[in-house]
Amino acid sequence: MEERTSVNNPQIKAISKLEKKKYREETGYYLIEGFHLVEEALKSHVKYREILATEKALAQLSSLPFDLDDDKLIKISDNVAKHLSSTKNSQDVFMTVKMQQPGQFTFTYGKWVLLDDLADPGNVGTIIRTADAAGFDGVILSPQTVDLYNPKVQRSMQGSQFHISLIKQDLADAIGQLQNADIPVYASMLDQNAKQLNDFAPVPQLGLIIGNEAHGVSTDIAALADEKLYIPIKGQAESLNAAVAAGIMIYHFS
Amino acid sequence: MEERTSVNNPQIKAISKLEKKKYREETGYYLIEGFHLVEEALKSHVKYREILATEKALAQLSSLPFDLDDDKLIKISDNVAKHLSSTKNSQDVFMTVKMQQPGQFTFTYGKWVLLDDLADPGNVGTIIRTADAAGFDGVILSPQTVDLYNPKVQRSMQGSQFHISLIKQDLADAIGQLQNADIPVYASMLDQNAKQLNDFAPVPQLGLIIGNEAHGVSTDIAALADEKLYIPIKGQAESLNAAVAAGIMIYHFS
Repeated sequence: MEERTSVNNPQIKAISKLEKKKYREETGYYLIEGFHLVEEALKSHVKYREILATEKALAQLSSLPFDLDDDKLIKISDNVAKHLSSTKNSQDVFMTVKMQQPGQFTFTYGKWVLLDDLADPGNVGTIIRTADAAGFDGVILSPQTVDLYNPKVQRSMQGSQFHISLIKQDLADAIGQLQNADIPVYASMLDQNAKQLNDFAPVPQLGLIIGNEAHGVSTDIAALADEKLYIPIKGQAESLNAAVAAGIMIYHFS
Repeated sequence: MEERTSVNNPQIKAISKLEKKKYREETGYYLIEGFHLVEEALKSHVKYREILATEKALAQLSSLPFDLDDDKLIKISDNVAKHLSSTKNSQDVFMTVKMQQPGQFTFTYGKWVLLDDLADPGNVGTIIRTADAAGFDGVILSPQTVDLYNPKVQRSMQGSQFHISLIKQDLADAIGQLQNADIPVYASMLDQNAKQLNDFAPVPQLGLIIGNEAHGVSTDIAALADEKLYIPIKGQAESLNAAVAAGIMIYHFS
Protein backbone atom coordinates (compact mmCIF):
# COMPACT_ATOMS: atom_id res chain seq x y z
CA MET A 1 0.00 0.00 0.00
CA GLU A 2 1.27 3.42 -0.96
CA GLU A 3 1.56 6.10 1.68
CA ARG A 4 1.18 9.88 1.34
CA THR A 5 2.19 12.23 4.11
CA SER A 6 2.61 15.56 2.33
CA VAL A 7 -0.01 17.90 0.91
CA ASN A 8 2.60 18.82 -1.70
CA ASN A 9 2.74 15.31 -3.11
CA PRO A 10 1.69 15.58 -6.81
CA GLN A 11 -0.99 12.89 -6.50
CA ILE A 12 -2.52 14.58 -3.44
CA LYS A 13 -2.39 17.96 -5.16
CA ALA A 14 -4.19 16.50 -8.18
CA ILE A 15 -6.89 14.92 -5.99
CA SER A 16 -7.35 18.13 -4.03
CA LYS A 17 -8.01 19.96 -7.31
CA LEU A 18 -11.08 17.78 -7.97
CA GLU A 19 -12.95 20.30 -5.85
CA LYS A 20 -13.03 22.38 -9.04
CA LYS A 21 -15.31 21.51 -11.94
CA LYS A 22 -12.56 22.18 -14.46
CA TYR A 23 -10.33 19.44 -13.02
CA ARG A 24 -13.22 16.99 -12.64
CA GLU A 25 -13.96 17.39 -16.32
CA GLU A 26 -10.31 17.09 -17.28
CA THR A 27 -9.83 13.84 -15.37
CA GLY A 28 -13.32 12.32 -15.45
CA TYR A 29 -13.23 11.72 -11.68
CA TYR A 30 -14.81 13.34 -8.64
CA LEU A 31 -14.06 13.06 -4.95
CA ILE A 32 -16.40 11.74 -2.28
CA GLU A 33 -15.67 11.58 1.45
CA GLY A 34 -16.98 9.89 4.58
CA PHE A 35 -17.80 6.27 5.39
CA HIS A 36 -21.44 6.49 4.35
CA LEU A 37 -20.69 7.67 0.81
CA VAL A 38 -17.69 5.38 0.30
CA GLU A 39 -19.76 2.41 1.47
CA GLU A 40 -22.64 3.36 -0.84
CA ALA A 41 -20.18 3.67 -3.73
CA LEU A 42 -18.64 0.25 -3.03
CA LYS A 43 -22.08 -1.34 -2.67
CA SER A 44 -23.07 -0.08 -6.10
CA HIS A 45 -19.81 -1.30 -7.71
CA VAL A 46 -18.81 2.05 -9.14
CA LYS A 47 -15.51 2.47 -10.94
CA TYR A 48 -12.97 4.26 -8.79
CA ARG A 49 -9.34 5.18 -9.02
CA GLU A 50 -8.25 5.22 -5.39
CA ILE A 51 -9.41 5.12 -1.79
CA LEU A 52 -7.47 7.32 0.61
CA ALA A 53 -7.73 6.90 4.36
CA THR A 54 -5.77 7.53 7.54
CA GLU A 55 -4.48 4.51 9.47
CA LYS A 56 -7.45 4.68 11.84
CA ALA A 57 -9.97 5.04 9.00
CA LEU A 58 -8.30 2.15 7.12
CA ALA A 59 -8.86 -0.11 10.11
CA GLN A 60 -12.56 0.81 10.15
CA LEU A 61 -12.76 0.39 6.38
CA SER A 62 -11.35 -3.13 6.53
CA SER A 63 -14.24 -4.12 8.82
CA LEU A 64 -16.68 -3.49 5.96
CA PRO A 65 -17.81 -6.48 3.87
CA PHE A 66 -15.98 -5.48 0.68
CA ASP A 67 -12.97 -6.96 -1.12
CA LEU A 68 -10.82 -3.88 -1.54
CA ASP A 69 -8.13 -3.81 -4.20
CA ASP A 70 -4.92 -3.20 -2.25
CA ASP A 71 -3.36 -1.45 -5.27
CA LYS A 72 -6.00 1.24 -5.01
CA LEU A 73 -5.63 1.87 -1.29
CA ILE A 74 -3.52 4.80 -0.13
CA LYS A 75 -2.68 5.47 3.48
CA ILE A 76 -2.67 9.19 4.24
CA SER A 77 -1.49 11.23 7.20
CA ASP A 78 -3.86 13.31 9.32
CA ASN A 79 -2.72 16.55 7.70
CA VAL A 80 -3.35 15.19 4.20
CA ALA A 81 -6.85 14.09 5.31
CA LYS A 82 -7.51 17.55 6.69
CA HIS A 83 -6.29 19.09 3.45
CA LEU A 84 -8.59 16.95 1.28
CA SER A 85 -11.68 17.34 3.45
CA SER A 86 -14.41 19.83 2.63
CA THR A 87 -16.10 19.46 6.03
CA LYS A 88 -15.26 20.46 9.58
CA ASN A 89 -15.56 16.97 11.00
CA SER A 90 -13.78 14.78 8.47
CA GLN A 91 -14.05 11.01 8.76
CA ASP A 92 -10.63 10.78 7.07
CA VAL A 93 -11.74 8.52 4.22
CA PHE A 94 -11.93 9.59 0.56
CA MET A 95 -12.56 8.00 -2.82
CA THR A 96 -12.01 9.22 -6.38
CA VAL A 97 -15.03 8.00 -8.32
CA LYS A 98 -15.47 7.88 -12.10
CA MET A 99 -18.15 10.27 -13.34
CA GLN A 100 -20.75 8.43 -15.36
CA GLN A 101 -23.00 10.18 -17.81
CA PRO A 102 -24.94 7.97 -20.20
CA GLY A 103 -24.18 9.11 -23.75
CA GLN A 104 -27.77 8.83 -24.85
CA PHE A 105 -30.83 8.36 -22.71
CA THR A 106 -34.44 8.14 -23.87
CA PHE A 107 -37.19 8.72 -21.33
CA THR A 108 -39.93 6.17 -21.98
CA TYR A 109 -41.09 5.22 -18.48
CA GLY A 110 -41.09 6.23 -14.85
CA LYS A 111 -41.23 9.18 -12.51
CA TRP A 112 -38.71 11.95 -13.01
CA VAL A 113 -37.91 15.33 -11.52
CA LEU A 114 -36.66 17.87 -14.07
CA LEU A 115 -34.46 20.68 -12.72
CA ASP A 116 -34.62 23.85 -14.83
CA ASP A 117 -31.36 25.76 -14.18
CA LEU A 118 -31.27 25.39 -10.39
CA ALA A 119 -28.43 27.44 -8.93
CA ASP A 120 -28.11 26.40 -5.29
CA PRO A 121 -26.06 23.23 -4.71
CA GLY A 122 -27.80 22.49 -1.40
CA ASN A 123 -31.21 22.63 -3.11
CA VAL A 124 -30.11 20.37 -5.97
CA GLY A 125 -28.63 17.77 -3.62
CA THR A 126 -31.62 17.86 -1.27
CA ILE A 127 -34.14 17.51 -4.14
CA ILE A 128 -32.21 14.52 -5.52
CA ARG A 129 -32.19 12.94 -2.04
CA THR A 130 -35.97 13.51 -1.75
CA ALA A 131 -36.62 12.02 -5.23
CA ASP A 132 -34.63 8.97 -4.14
CA ALA A 133 -36.55 8.65 -0.85
CA ALA A 134 -39.88 8.96 -2.69
CA GLY A 135 -39.00 6.15 -5.08
CA PHE A 136 -38.67 8.28 -8.21
CA ASP A 137 -36.63 6.83 -11.08
CA GLY A 138 -34.31 9.78 -11.42
CA VAL A 139 -33.61 13.46 -11.86
CA ILE A 140 -32.94 15.23 -15.16
CA LEU A 141 -30.66 18.25 -14.82
CA SER A 142 -30.73 21.01 -17.42
CA PRO A 143 -27.23 21.84 -18.71
CA GLN A 144 -27.24 25.14 -16.76
CA THR A 145 -28.17 23.51 -13.45
CA VAL A 146 -25.35 23.58 -10.87
CA ASP A 147 -22.79 20.80 -11.40
CA LEU A 148 -23.82 17.46 -9.93
CA TYR A 149 -20.29 16.75 -8.70
CA ASN A 150 -20.00 20.00 -6.76
CA PRO A 151 -18.93 19.02 -3.19
CA LYS A 152 -22.00 20.73 -1.66
CA VAL A 153 -24.35 18.84 -3.99
CA GLN A 154 -22.55 15.63 -3.03
CA ARG A 155 -22.93 16.36 0.68
CA SER A 156 -26.62 17.11 0.49
CA MET A 157 -27.59 14.21 -1.78
CA GLN A 158 -25.96 11.74 0.64
CA GLY A 159 -25.23 8.98 -1.86
CA SER A 160 -28.43 9.15 -3.90
CA GLN A 161 -26.30 9.22 -7.08
CA PHE A 162 -25.72 5.52 -6.38
CA HIS A 163 -29.47 4.79 -6.19
CA ILE A 164 -31.27 6.67 -8.96
CA SER A 165 -30.48 7.93 -12.47
CA LEU A 166 -29.12 11.47 -12.64
CA ILE A 167 -29.00 12.67 -16.21
CA LYS A 168 -27.82 15.96 -17.65
CA GLN A 169 -29.96 16.62 -20.70
CA ASP A 170 -31.72 19.37 -22.57
CA LEU A 171 -35.12 19.61 -20.84
CA ALA A 172 -37.11 20.26 -24.03
CA ASP A 173 -35.76 16.97 -25.45
CA ALA A 174 -36.54 15.07 -22.27
CA ILE A 175 -40.06 16.52 -22.07
CA GLY A 176 -40.72 15.53 -25.70
CA GLN A 177 -39.63 11.96 -24.98
CA LEU A 178 -41.78 11.70 -21.86
CA GLN A 179 -44.82 13.04 -23.71
CA ASN A 180 -44.20 10.68 -26.63
CA ALA A 181 -44.44 7.87 -24.10
CA ASP A 182 -47.77 9.30 -22.82
CA ILE A 183 -46.19 10.42 -19.57
CA PRO A 184 -47.69 13.72 -18.31
CA VAL A 185 -45.32 16.58 -17.55
CA TYR A 186 -46.24 19.10 -14.85
CA ALA A 187 -44.45 22.37 -14.13
CA SER A 188 -44.31 23.88 -10.65
CA MET A 189 -45.19 27.54 -11.07
CA LEU A 190 -47.59 30.31 -10.23
CA ASP A 191 -49.56 31.18 -13.33
CA GLN A 192 -53.16 32.06 -14.10
CA ASN A 193 -53.67 28.53 -15.45
CA ALA A 194 -51.94 26.79 -12.55
CA LYS A 195 -53.91 24.43 -10.31
CA GLN A 196 -53.43 23.66 -6.65
CA LEU A 197 -51.29 20.62 -5.90
CA ASN A 198 -54.09 18.93 -3.96
CA ASP A 199 -56.31 18.96 -7.06
CA PHE A 200 -53.93 16.52 -8.74
CA ALA A 201 -54.67 12.82 -8.43
CA PRO A 202 -51.88 10.27 -8.14
CA VAL A 203 -50.36 9.24 -11.49
CA PRO A 204 -48.35 6.11 -12.29
CA GLN A 205 -45.72 7.99 -14.31
CA LEU A 206 -44.71 11.65 -14.32
CA GLY A 207 -42.28 14.39 -15.22
CA LEU A 208 -42.21 17.15 -12.58
CA ILE A 209 -40.41 20.38 -13.52
CA ILE A 210 -38.86 22.51 -10.76
CA GLY A 211 -37.72 26.02 -11.70
CA ASN A 212 -34.73 28.18 -10.81
CA GLU A 213 -34.85 29.62 -7.27
CA ALA A 214 -35.08 33.24 -8.43
CA HIS A 215 -36.71 33.08 -11.87
CA GLY A 216 -38.89 29.97 -11.71
CA VAL A 217 -39.48 27.69 -14.70
CA SER A 218 -38.28 29.34 -17.91
CA THR A 219 -40.96 30.47 -20.37
CA ASP A 220 -40.07 28.08 -23.19
CA ILE A 221 -39.99 25.08 -20.86
CA ALA A 222 -43.24 26.09 -19.13
CA ALA A 223 -44.94 26.26 -22.54
CA LEU A 224 -44.22 22.55 -23.06
CA ALA A 225 -45.79 21.39 -19.79
CA ASP A 226 -49.18 19.60 -19.80
CA GLU A 227 -50.21 21.21 -16.51
CA LYS A 228 -48.99 23.90 -14.14
CA LEU A 229 -49.28 23.40 -10.40
CA TYR A 230 -48.56 25.32 -7.23
CA ILE A 231 -48.62 24.86 -3.47
CA PRO A 232 -51.05 27.35 -1.88
CA ILE A 233 -49.57 29.80 0.63
CA LYS A 234 -52.03 30.03 3.52
CA GLY A 235 -50.06 32.30 5.84
CA GLN A 236 -48.05 35.48 5.29
CA ALA A 237 -44.78 33.98 4.05
CA GLU A 238 -44.15 35.05 0.45
CA SER A 239 -42.95 31.65 -0.67
CA LEU A 240 -41.55 28.31 0.39
CA ASN A 241 -37.90 27.26 0.34
CA ALA A 242 -37.25 25.64 -3.08
CA ALA A 243 -36.18 22.25 -1.70
CA VAL A 244 -39.15 22.14 0.71
CA ALA A 245 -41.62 23.01 -2.07
CA ALA A 246 -40.10 20.37 -4.35
CA GLY A 247 -40.26 17.86 -1.48
CA ILE A 248 -43.96 18.47 -0.86
CA MET A 249 -44.73 17.99 -4.58
CA ILE A 250 -42.50 14.94 -5.00
CA TYR A 251 -44.15 13.21 -2.04
CA HIS A 252 -47.60 14.14 -3.28
CA PHE A 253 -46.87 12.11 -6.42
CA SER A 254 -44.86 9.33 -4.76
CA MET B 1 -29.22 62.35 10.79
CA GLU B 2 -26.12 60.86 12.33
CA GLU B 3 -23.39 59.53 10.09
CA ARG B 4 -20.93 56.68 10.71
CA THR B 5 -17.97 56.11 8.45
CA SER B 6 -15.63 54.02 10.58
CA VAL B 7 -15.89 50.40 11.63
CA ASN B 8 -14.09 51.44 14.80
CA ASN B 9 -16.89 53.75 15.86
CA PRO B 10 -18.13 52.45 19.26
CA GLN B 11 -21.77 52.33 18.12
CA ILE B 12 -20.86 50.35 14.98
CA LYS B 13 -18.66 48.02 17.02
CA ALA B 14 -21.54 47.38 19.44
CA ILE B 15 -23.97 46.66 16.58
CA SER B 16 -21.49 44.36 14.88
CA LYS B 17 -21.26 42.33 18.09
CA LEU B 18 -24.98 41.47 17.88
CA GLU B 19 -23.89 38.59 15.65
CA LYS B 20 -23.07 36.84 18.93
CA LYS B 21 -25.81 35.47 21.18
CA LYS B 22 -24.08 36.82 24.29
CA TYR B 23 -24.35 40.41 23.09
CA ARG B 24 -27.91 39.96 21.86
CA GLU B 25 -28.89 38.80 25.34
CA GLU B 26 -26.96 41.60 27.03
CA THR B 27 -28.64 44.30 24.98
CA GLY B 28 -32.02 42.76 24.15
CA TYR B 29 -31.60 43.61 20.45
CA TYR B 30 -30.77 41.64 17.31
CA LEU B 31 -29.71 42.74 13.85
CA ILE B 32 -31.62 42.17 10.62
CA GLU B 33 -30.49 43.16 7.14
CA GLY B 34 -31.91 43.63 3.66
CA PHE B 35 -34.94 45.53 2.37
CA HIS B 36 -37.34 42.60 2.61
CA LEU B 37 -36.73 42.03 6.31
CA VAL B 38 -36.61 45.72 7.24
CA GLU B 39 -39.88 46.30 5.39
CA GLU B 40 -41.52 43.32 7.11
CA ALA B 41 -40.31 44.65 10.46
CA LEU B 42 -41.68 48.14 9.79
CA LYS B 43 -45.00 46.71 8.57
CA SER B 44 -45.42 44.81 11.79
CA HIS B 45 -44.57 47.85 13.95
CA VAL B 46 -41.75 46.22 15.89
CA LYS B 47 -39.72 48.19 18.37
CA TYR B 48 -36.31 49.06 17.00
CA ARG B 49 -33.33 51.10 18.09
CA GLU B 50 -31.85 52.25 14.78
CA ILE B 51 -31.90 51.79 11.03
CA LEU B 52 -28.53 51.96 9.32
CA ALA B 53 -28.20 52.43 5.57
CA THR B 54 -25.81 53.75 2.96
CA GLU B 55 -26.79 56.90 1.07
CA LYS B 56 -28.08 54.84 -1.85
CA ALA B 57 -30.03 52.47 0.41
CA LEU B 58 -31.48 55.46 2.33
CA ALA B 59 -32.89 56.85 -0.92
CA GLN B 60 -34.56 53.52 -1.66
CA LEU B 61 -35.79 53.28 1.95
CA SER B 62 -37.44 56.70 1.75
CA SER B 63 -39.55 55.46 -1.19
CA LEU B 64 -41.25 52.97 1.14
CA PRO B 65 -44.62 53.94 2.64
CA PHE B 66 -43.38 54.30 6.24
CA ASP B 67 -42.92 57.31 8.49
CA LEU B 68 -39.37 56.82 9.64
CA ASP B 69 -38.16 58.48 12.82
CA ASP B 70 -35.22 60.62 11.67
CA ASP B 71 -33.58 60.31 15.10
CA LYS B 72 -33.24 56.59 14.54
CA LEU B 73 -31.76 56.80 11.05
CA ILE B 74 -28.00 56.50 10.65
CA LYS B 75 -26.19 57.02 7.38
CA ILE B 76 -23.28 54.60 7.00
CA SER B 77 -20.40 54.39 4.56
CA ASP B 78 -19.95 51.43 2.18
CA ASN B 79 -17.16 49.95 4.30
CA VAL B 80 -19.33 50.06 7.45
CA ALA B 81 -22.14 48.33 5.53
CA LYS B 82 -19.73 45.65 4.35
CA HIS B 83 -18.50 45.21 7.92
CA LEU B 84 -22.03 44.76 9.33
CA SER B 85 -23.26 42.42 6.60
CA SER B 86 -23.36 38.66 7.04
CA THR B 87 -23.99 37.99 3.33
CA LYS B 88 -21.95 38.30 0.16
CA ASN B 89 -24.43 40.55 -1.61
CA SER B 90 -25.42 43.07 1.02
CA GLN B 91 -28.31 45.44 0.34
CA ASP B 92 -26.63 47.93 2.69
CA VAL B 93 -29.62 48.36 5.01
CA PHE B 94 -29.73 47.16 8.62
CA MET B 95 -32.02 47.43 11.63
CA THR B 96 -31.53 46.69 15.32
CA VAL B 97 -34.78 45.09 16.45
CA LYS B 98 -35.96 44.48 20.01
CA MET B 99 -36.18 40.80 20.86
CA GLN B 100 -39.64 39.95 22.12
CA GLN B 101 -40.29 36.89 24.18
CA PRO B 102 -43.68 36.70 25.89
CA GLY B 103 -43.09 36.16 29.59
CA GLN B 104 -45.83 33.58 29.88
CA PHE B 105 -47.71 31.85 27.11
CA THR B 106 -50.43 29.23 27.47
CA PHE B 107 -51.25 27.05 24.48
CA THR B 108 -55.02 26.69 24.31
CA TYR B 109 -55.74 26.83 20.57
CA GLY B 110 -54.24 26.48 17.12
CA LYS B 111 -51.66 24.62 15.10
CA TRP B 112 -48.11 24.56 16.36
CA VAL B 113 -44.79 23.02 15.39
CA LEU B 114 -42.66 22.00 18.38
CA LEU B 115 -38.88 21.86 17.80
CA ASP B 116 -37.11 19.43 20.10
CA ASP B 117 -33.47 20.59 20.35
CA LEU B 118 -32.87 21.26 16.65
CA ALA B 119 -29.23 22.12 16.00
CA ASP B 120 -29.02 23.40 12.43
CA PRO B 121 -29.91 27.11 12.00
CA GLY B 122 -30.88 26.63 8.34
CA ASN B 123 -33.33 23.87 9.30
CA VAL B 124 -34.89 25.91 12.11
CA GLY B 125 -35.35 28.97 9.89
CA THR B 126 -36.73 26.93 6.99
CA ILE B 127 -39.20 25.05 9.22
CA ILE B 128 -40.45 28.34 10.68
CA ARG B 129 -40.88 29.75 7.14
CA THR B 130 -42.83 26.62 6.13
CA ALA B 131 -45.07 26.80 9.23
CA ASP B 132 -45.81 30.42 8.31
CA ALA B 133 -46.58 29.54 4.67
CA ALA B 134 -48.88 26.70 5.79
CA GLY B 135 -50.89 29.01 8.03
CA PHE B 136 -49.78 27.51 11.36
CA ASP B 137 -50.12 29.72 14.45
CA GLY B 138 -46.54 29.41 15.54
CA VAL B 139 -43.47 27.42 16.46
CA ILE B 140 -42.43 26.40 19.97
CA LEU B 141 -38.67 26.09 20.40
CA SER B 142 -37.23 23.94 23.18
CA PRO B 143 -34.64 25.82 25.26
CA GLN B 144 -31.79 23.79 23.65
CA THR B 145 -32.90 24.52 20.07
CA VAL B 146 -30.50 26.80 18.20
CA ASP B 147 -31.01 30.50 18.99
CA LEU B 148 -33.82 32.12 17.02
CA TYR B 149 -31.82 35.31 16.52
CA ASN B 150 -28.82 33.54 14.99
CA PRO B 151 -28.11 35.31 11.64
CA LYS B 152 -28.50 32.04 9.67
CA VAL B 153 -31.90 31.37 11.27
CA GLN B 154 -32.88 34.94 10.40
CA ARG B 155 -31.81 34.52 6.78
CA SER B 156 -33.69 31.29 6.24
CA MET B 157 -36.91 32.31 7.98
CA GLN B 158 -37.18 35.39 5.75
CA GLY B 159 -39.26 37.55 8.06
CA SER B 160 -41.64 34.89 9.40
CA GLN B 161 -40.88 36.10 12.94
CA PHE B 162 -43.09 39.07 12.05
CA HIS B 163 -46.00 36.83 11.00
CA ILE B 164 -46.36 33.98 13.50
CA SER B 165 -45.65 33.37 17.19
CA LEU B 166 -42.21 31.99 17.98
CA ILE B 167 -42.00 30.92 21.59
CA LYS B 168 -39.11 29.44 23.54
CA GLN B 169 -40.65 27.14 26.11
CA ASP B 170 -40.14 23.82 27.82
CA LEU B 171 -41.79 21.32 25.46
CA ALA B 172 -43.25 19.12 28.19
CA ASP B 173 -45.10 22.18 29.56
CA ALA B 174 -46.35 23.20 26.12
CA ILE B 175 -47.51 19.64 25.33
CA GLY B 176 -49.41 19.48 28.62
CA GLN B 177 -51.18 22.75 27.83
CA LEU B 178 -52.11 21.64 24.32
CA GLN B 179 -53.47 18.33 25.60
CA ASN B 180 -55.42 20.09 28.35
CA ALA B 181 -57.13 22.03 25.58
CA ASP B 182 -57.95 18.74 23.77
CA ILE B 183 -55.41 19.47 21.03
CA PRO B 184 -53.70 16.28 19.82
CA VAL B 185 -49.90 16.17 19.84
CA TYR B 186 -48.08 14.05 17.24
CA ALA B 187 -44.37 13.25 17.22
CA SER B 188 -42.44 12.69 14.00
CA MET B 189 -40.41 9.53 14.58
CA LEU B 190 -39.74 5.99 13.50
CA ASP B 191 -41.02 3.67 16.19
CA GLN B 192 -42.83 0.35 16.28
CA ASN B 193 -46.04 2.21 17.15
CA ALA B 194 -45.60 4.92 14.53
CA LYS B 195 -48.15 5.27 11.72
CA GLN B 196 -47.63 6.49 8.17
CA LEU B 197 -48.34 10.18 7.61
CA ASN B 198 -50.99 9.44 4.98
CA ASP B 199 -53.03 7.49 7.53
CA PHE B 200 -53.64 10.71 9.45
CA ALA B 201 -56.80 12.67 8.67
CA PRO B 202 -56.81 16.46 8.72
CA VAL B 203 -57.28 17.95 12.20
CA PRO B 204 -58.46 21.46 13.12
CA GLN B 205 -55.80 21.94 15.80
CA LEU B 206 -52.47 20.23 16.37
CA GLY B 207 -49.06 20.10 18.01
CA LEU B 208 -46.45 18.54 15.70
CA ILE B 209 -43.11 17.61 17.30
CA ILE B 210 -39.96 17.58 15.12
CA GLY B 211 -36.84 15.98 16.61
CA ASN B 212 -33.15 16.82 16.57
CA GLU B 213 -31.43 16.09 13.22
CA ALA B 214 -29.15 13.39 14.65
CA HIS B 215 -31.02 11.98 17.64
CA GLY B 216 -34.69 12.47 16.75
CA VAL B 217 -37.37 13.28 19.31
CA SER B 218 -36.05 12.76 22.85
CA THR B 219 -37.46 9.81 24.78
CA ASP B 220 -39.23 11.80 27.48
CA ILE B 221 -40.91 14.09 24.95
CA ALA B 222 -41.90 11.17 22.69
CA ALA B 223 -43.58 9.49 25.66
CA LEU B 224 -45.95 12.46 25.98
CA ALA B 225 -47.16 12.38 22.37
CA ASP B 226 -50.64 11.09 21.51
CA GLU B 227 -49.45 9.56 18.23
CA LYS B 228 -46.17 8.89 16.43
CA LEU B 229 -45.94 9.36 12.69
CA TYR B 230 -43.40 8.91 9.92
CA ILE B 231 -42.99 9.53 6.20
CA PRO B 232 -42.39 6.24 4.38
CA ILE B 233 -39.11 5.91 2.48
CA LYS B 234 -39.92 4.20 -0.82
CA GLY B 235 -36.49 4.35 -2.46
CA GLN B 236 -32.99 3.65 -1.20
CA ALA B 237 -32.25 6.94 0.55
CA GLU B 238 -31.82 6.36 4.27
CA SER B 239 -33.78 9.41 5.30
CA LEU B 240 -35.11 12.79 4.25
CA ASN B 241 -33.53 16.15 4.97
CA ALA B 242 -35.01 17.41 8.29
CA ALA B 243 -36.53 20.60 6.85
CA VAL B 244 -38.02 18.72 3.88
CA ALA B 245 -39.54 16.05 6.14
CA ALA B 246 -40.98 18.72 8.43
CA GLY B 247 -42.34 20.56 5.36
CA ILE B 248 -44.15 17.48 4.04
CA MET B 249 -45.76 16.90 7.46
CA ILE B 250 -46.67 20.54 8.06
CA TYR B 251 -48.38 20.76 4.66
CA HIS B 252 -50.19 17.47 5.23
CA PHE B 253 -51.86 19.09 8.26
CA SER B 254 -52.26 22.57 6.81
